[in-house]
Amino acid sequence: MKKDNSQFIELIKNQKSNFPLDQSFYTDPNIYRNDLETFFYNQWIFIGHESQIKNIGDYFLFEVGHESIIVIKDKNQKINCFFNVCRHRGSQICLEKKGKVKKLVCPYHAWSYDLSGDLISARMMNDEFEKKDWGLNKCKSKIFEGLIFVNLSDDPDDFKEFINPIKKFIELHGLNRAKVAFKKTYPTDGNWKLTLDNFHECYHCLPAHPEYCHVHSKDYIQAYGAGNNTGPESIEFSKKLSLWNKKTEKLGYLTGEYSDTNFSNFFRSAERTPFDSDRLSETKDGKPGSILMGQFKEFDGGYTTVGTSPFNSFIMSNDFATIFTFIPRGPLKTDVEIMWLVHEDAEEGKDYDLNKLIWMWDKTTIADKKIIENNQKGVMSKKYVPGPLSEMEIGLEKLKKWYLKHLEIKLKNTI
Amino acid sequence: MKKDNSQFIELIKNQKSNFPLDQSFYTDPNIYRNDLETFFYNQWIFIGHESQIKNIGDYFLFEVGHESIIVIKDKNQKINCFFNVCRHRGSQICLEKKGKVKKLVCPYHAWSYDLSGDLISARMMNDEFEKKDWGLNKCKSKIFEGLIFVNLSDDPDDFKEFINPIKKFIELHGLNRAKVAFKKTYPTDGNWKLTLDNFHECYHCLPAHPEYCHVHSKDYIQAYGAGNNTGPESIEFSKKLSLWNKKTEKLGYLTGEYSDTNFSNFFRSAERTPFDSDRLSETKDGKPGSILMGQFKEFDGGYTTVGTSPFNSFIMSNDFATIFTFIPRGPLKTDVEIMWLVHEDAEEGKDYDLNKLIWMWDKTTIADKKIIENNQKGVMSKKYVPGPLSEMEIGLEKLKKWYLKHLEIKLKNTI
Amino acid sequence: MKKDNSQFIELIKNQKSNFPLDQSFYTDPNIYRNDLETFFYNQWIFIGHESQIKNIGDYFLFEVGHESIIVIKDKNQKINCFFNVCRHRGSQICLEKKGKVKKLVCPYHAWSYDLSGDLISARMMNDEFEKKDWGLNKCKSKIFEGLIFVNLSDDPDDFKEFINPIKKFIELHGLNRAKVAFKKTYPTDGNWKLTLDNFHECYHCLPAHPEYCHVHSKDYIQAYGAGNNTGPESIEFSKKLSLWNKKTEKLGYLTGEYSDTNFSNFFRSAERTPFDSDRLSETKDGKPGSILMGQFKEFDGGYTTVGTSPFNSFIMSNDFATIFTFIPRGPLKTDVEIMWLVHEDAEEGKDYDLNKLIWMWDKTTIADKKIIENNQKGVMSKKYVPGPLSEMEIGLEKLKKWYLKHLEIKLKNTI
Repeated sequence: MKKDNSQFIELIKNQKSNFPLDQSFYTDPNIYRNDLETFFYNQWIFIGHESQIKNIGDYFLFEVGHESIIVIKDKNQKINCFFNVCRHRGSQICLEKKGKVKKLVCPYHAWSYDLSGDLISARMMNDEFEKKDWGLNKCKSKIFEGLIFVNLSDDPDDFKEFINPIKKFIELHGLNRAKVAFKKTYPTDGNWKLTLDNFHECYHCLPAHPEYCHVHSKDYIQAYGAGNNTGPESIEFSKKLSLWNKKTEKLGYLTGEYSDTNFSNFFRSAERTPFDSDRLSETKDGKPGSILMGQFKEFDGGYTTVGTSPFNSFIMSNDFATIFTFIPRGPLKTDVEIMWLVHEDAEEGKDYDLNKLIWMWDKTTIADKKIIENNQKGVMSKKYVPGPLSEMEIGLEKLKKWYLKHLEIKLKNTI
Repeated sequence: MKKDNSQFIELIKNQKSNFPLDQSFYTDPNIYRNDLETFFYNQWIFIGHESQIKNIGDYFLFEVGHESIIVIKDKNQKINCFFNVCRHRGSQICLEKKGKVKKLVCPYHAWSYDLSGDLISARMMNDEFEKKDWGLNKCKSKIFEGLIFVNLSDDPDDFKEFINPIKKFIELHGLNRAKVAFKKTYPTDGNWKLTLDNFHECYHCLPAHPEYCHVHSKDYIQAYGAGNNTGPESIEFSKKLSLWNKKTEKLGYLTGEYSDTNFSNFFRSAERTPFDSDRLSETKDGKPGSILMGQFKEFDGGYTTVGTSPFNSFIMSNDFATIFTFIPRGPLKTDVEIMWLVHEDAEEGKDYDLNKLIWMWDKTTIADKKIIENNQKGVMSKKYVPGPLSEMEIGLEKLKKWYLKHLEIKLKNTI
Repeated sequence: MKKDNSQFIELIKNQKSNFPLDQSFYTDPNIYRNDLETFFYNQWIFIGHESQIKNIGDYFLFEVGHESIIVIKDKNQKINCFFNVCRHRGSQICLEKKGKVKKLVCPYHAWSYDLSGDLISARMMNDEFEKKDWGLNKCKSKIFEGLIFVNLSDDPDDFKEFINPIKKFIELHGLNRAKVAFKKTYPTDGNWKLTLDNFHECYHCLPAHPEYCHVHSKDYIQAYGAGNNTGPESIEFSKKLSLWNKKTEKLGYLTGEYSDTNFSNFFRSAERTPFDSDRLSETKDGKPGSILMGQFKEFDGGYTTVGTSPFNSFIMSNDFATIFTFIPRGPLKTDVEIMWLVHEDAEEGKDYDLNKLIWMWDKTTIADKKIIENNQKGVMSKKYVPGPLSEMEIGLEKLKKWYLKHLEIKLKNTI
């Protein structure tokens, strides 16, 4: 990237307002490598729930690009995140996706680390060798409401500053008392930005997502389908929202919305909105999908969506949460991972039916995978030129502006 | 390519007469990308027959490199070719290899185009948006004698100028009243030029193609196996040809030959030649393969070969036609596609036996695939240096000269 | 590499003593290509045994990178090595991994070479063509004690100078009267240097190789596990060795050791060492694996290891030999090939049990494959930095120094 900075800055400047990005942003391997460093490795990313590693020594791996992170519970019940790289000759230490260990022993030469990452044994080293200098490399992490966030940067943004404006929207749902009901990965042959473009507009929902349109009303989709302030106002829905806000405030639950308006390192949004008619949850028939979670004593007929960064979205009914993680896997590959959370006391078969819980987002994400892959194929053509965006693609435009501005700042700083 | 122009021009100049090309021409990804742009995307390419899309809304896709072309019949029975790229965000519109549609609806956001490519519907666009500005990108195309030709260039050569000298050789066979009896693709792990080298000499026919040598006589193979003026004269065959020409002219059918002698954008050749002994058609036993086509009222004992460009060859008996299309798929990959055409009234089982029809070229092309793949492996060696060409490899030398001269002109124009 | 020479020399200088190499040496495709040219193509490599091609016309292929070498016995019982590239248009000539031929006939245009590589027939060439100028390209080769060595360089090191210091260690074992009992390839997803690092230290033997530790004693592993002068002295083993040397010299067999101490083109080592207790051979139970070979009239309780270059190791009990060949296949791919040799008169089932013969090195090499692959994954991380080597990794450090010095000299010579 170094030599091409001026060309690259020129390219950034040539991107037109209210049009998607040029081809190279969706295809170029150099831009991809730069993206990974500038965006994914610099954001606070939700990667799992503490219920996945309940006991001392329980661990799972989180993998992105060439990085593998060990997420493990230590003797003080603290969750640590380590780069899965032995300090001796660099072997990976944990080879299974998840497991339980007493200590972290490298399978190559048996260098051993305790669950806090300190090197506790290394045979046959010379006298100058000091074990204390060779502990595992930590990856910055924070646990918030049971949610495990990591930041692969050596100098991450302050977590409190990051979580503050969206905190209450998450706290409402009591995810610290949740468990993982189901996890599924949807490998998608598309650039990460093309994949996120899809998630930041609901213009395609009507033609492409019958299940989503069964659950959500047309007026909601128009105005809020891709989050607050991403589509044209719907008078009808504004009325519904205003009525529901009053009713819900009386019940004592949170209402309202947030989105970043000033440019910053963060790209966050959140809102609480009502379902239509008598619907209680994001299920096919609108009936509860599981038992109530968090602060809810009764169903309030609404639901909460939170985007913590471009790489995570939390979509929460009163009784279950659907969490998306978008993981770049290559210039033309992105994994969409979904985790469904329910109350820790909920029992499958009795309190919830897994098929009903996952129905809408599973069907919708399978459809999105196909849509994105067709989009990627077309974008590779020499005849692809960005076309005009509709009034329902404001979310995509916002994401693009945030992305381009970040790139520009970074490039100017590295000249 | 820009910076390396002088090196590249030097490389072109270093190619020796009567030797094949240097290694890099058969292996280098940069030369390949340049080739695609300079040659395949600039030639008139036969891609299918109008009988494949008889009814309004019938379409098939033609794919090469990152390009996908929709070939479709519109309401006025006109065949249109469109780049398969929605003008909105670039999604592919047609996802199946062939089908039938009422209009072209993008599966992403439902932008809809009529069969002439005009945008007829796009929801939620702002007031400035003009549908007439956002029709599908057309790919230049011409229908000649039922044959669909496309040219992916924005500024293609004049079709009439292109087809003129080879016109009558094709018209003789009545392909406008033909249908596709069979289609088969032979994916070949070889550079497109190495694949075409094979097709432009018949020096290998004797050791490698028993089926071809069963059908065609040794004297023909020597002088005409790779087309007119590509091998040393055979006195024996010249006599046969002269006798047959007289006899055939009496019957009222075309005789003669053509090949480009002055350098131009085109690389064309054509000729009519006799079979040996009592042979009537290019079948194993020499008996007819199907019913007569075109101008033929009886079998004239001859056959016609036409090369319209390096990427297509038409080999036509009186009763069926075998058409080759060579499609580059990567620096080391080429698809050889063969289409067998018979009279539109011919019935399989009654008028023709498919196995007999395809026997020779199917066997021969399977053998060529193996030969080319072995050649490619050897050409990758550091010890590969071009060796001297035989007297039967003049066709290959002609193709090489045409190729190099085009490259040189193009490079000089882009300095 | 040309433009980056100064950067590359800087990188070489930055490598720290007693630490493994930086990431790029294990991952960079450009460094890999340079490595292949500088190292593998410049060393004398053992590639097979003459018993594999006993009769006139018998051949096998040796393949590395884009090169394929025909190893064939000619009419004078001489073994010749040819690049498998026809001098005409470059096709491979031999397509099967092994076989028997009367002459070498190119399957493309039937150019024919005799078993000495001379062109004996080429049809239809013009008058200036001289067959004598177009013989097959020879690859330098030597047969020593039945072992076939090739050197892909055009200007190879003198073979006698190469083999001299390790000659007697090999001659002891009578490999000229051996046959191949078994051959197996272990494809390993690791850079060739990471693969060789593993083979040049026995620090990992204790945690990773129970079979090896069953056969070999702890004191041997410490001091000699990766060859002489690669680990800290073991007083206990030095005593055993000294006693065994005396006893063995009385029996009249070779003892002693060799390793290159001055920097040269060669990286060789050899030693004879005793087994523990009553063990006679490198088998599970220590009992003979086959009948005695070479100069041995009785079992002397010792065994011989010889490294002829980084790419070959010979590990020889009195009754069988295990020979390793390490073949780079790509920046992140290496084939480990093992050949087990026994006396030519030994009969399977009667004189040897194949499972017992291969037991230790088969299990150990399968384990090494996994270890190396985990190491490669970790080395790809941005957090990989070389760590301090132990006292048992001196062999790896030696190999690294030899490698870096060669690179530096080569780069300085090509400025």
